[in-house]
Amino acid sequence: MTNRPNDGASLDAEDRAAIADLLYAYAWHLDRNEPEEVGEVFTDDASLDYGPEFPTIIGRRQIVEAVARGQREIFTACSHHISNVRISPDGPDRATCTSYVYSWTQYRSGAPDGDMWGQYHCRFRRSADGWRIAEMVLRVAGMKNFHRGSMHPIGRRP
Amino acid sequence: MTNRPNDGASLDAEDRAAIADLLYAYAWHLDRNEPEEVGEVFTDDASLDYGPEFPTIIGRRQIVEAVARGQREIFTACSHHISNVRISPDGPDRATCTSYVYSWTQYRSGAPDGDMWGQYHCRFRRSADGWRIAEMVLRVAGMKNFHRGSMHPIGRRP
Amino acid sequence: MTNRPNDGASLDAEDRAAIADLLYAYAWHLDRNEPEEVGEVFTDDASLDYGPEFPTIIGRRQIVEAVARGQREIFTACSHHISNVRISPDGPDRATCTSYVYSWTQYRSGAPDGDMWGQYHCRFRRSADGWRIAEMVLRVAGMKNFHRGSMHPIGRRP
Repeated sequence: MTNRPNDGASLDAEDRAAIADLLYAYAWHLDRNEPEEVGEVFTDDASLDYGPEFPTIIGRRQIVEAVARGQREIFTACSHHISNVRISPDGPDRATCTSYVYSWTQYRSGAPDGDMWGQYHCRFRRSADGWRIAEMVLRVAGMKNFHRGSMHPIGRRP
Repeated sequence: MTNRPNDGASLDAEDRAAIADLLYAYAWHLDRNEPEEVGEVFTDDASLDYGPEFPTIIGRRQIVEAVARGQREIFTACSHHISNVRISPDGPDRATCTSYVYSWTQYRSGAPDGDMWGQYHCRFRRSADGWRIAEMVLRVAGMKNFHRGSMHPIGRRP
Repeated sequence: MTNRPNDGASLDAEDRAAIADLLYAYAWHLDRNEPEEVGEVFTDDASLDYGPEFPTIIGRRQIVEAVARGQREIFTACSHHISNVRISPDGPDRATCTSYVYSWTQYRSGAPDGDMWGQYHCRFRRSADGWRIAEMVLRVAGMKNFHRGSMHPIGRRP
């Protein structure tokens, strides 16, 4: 990658590592119930779409509050295992990424633990502070005992 | 890696990223039921071994047809989470790789969802079109409600 | 990363790949029941903490014996899926790393298979032979049918 002309749309190994690390930081702080730190991986104006049952969350402050509420009201523990990270340049200081997530969730309600097999579809933007997540959409291949009724599908062909 | 002499058997960061991405593309298109696109990650003469119950599939066209048939007849949904990617050079424009896969599978038959904990053992070849998978063997550490009787073992010592 | 001044505390792409590979080698040899080879990813004086029910294991020879004993007495099969690898420099020839592990375990006792969702918190040291794990602590977010009573927690806020 270092030999590619810098056309404003390439990503070097450091960019790719920094972008993947945002996803891992998201999981890390989510699983540790640290909503403020979850917020820090997003841009100020980021959107986070856990829908379609919930409206898209817009803005870092709203993301922090939504994460805090979920952890306070729904979860006692969770673990988000992220893999299959695929990053593409999307213009100068922009990138897109798809990744897989396998999550385990324990509920305050005492309901059976939930499993979810899904994907994060993200857009990233580089600011003076470094790369941040500008958009995250959760898409789901399958669920078991998960606390949600419907989720955005991964787009599997019938 | 960029400082290594190019002895025809080294892999730089870009090669490694491209090779790992083939595995992620395989999972992505498999899970989206896109057999043609699954075929595109393989060389024309690639072999794919899901055995020992099935004969090794030889050739991209045959891989596409086998994937299409499996998705049409057996699966309604699946998610292949790939990790532990270890890549080694194997001569000029050649590489080998082992990776882990944790897969979740939902069946058309209505049978309980299946889990599989396994490994992909692969060989890669670089052509004018870039890196492609030349050989893939699925080896399995464990299964739960999986639709297969026997699988190639990972080679655990007794 | 190649443009950073070498202040003795930076890690290039090759270092990061070598460090992540140690975790994958640990899983690979553990799952294949190869205790000697598990030992080789650690420094001579490494510590391995699967506690708090067990005392921290100190030294490569003791690690090999503990792994051999566990595989001989407890496990018939296992698969350790490692993801979310985050590596930081920690001074010259030193690094720290957190990673996630999702493990599946089959027991000699015939008990139901176990799942574990956890994290490896590690320190690494570079010697003349390359990078090695100097310290590994297993922390756990959740368990299902796992053979352990209590584990080091991941540090989730209440």
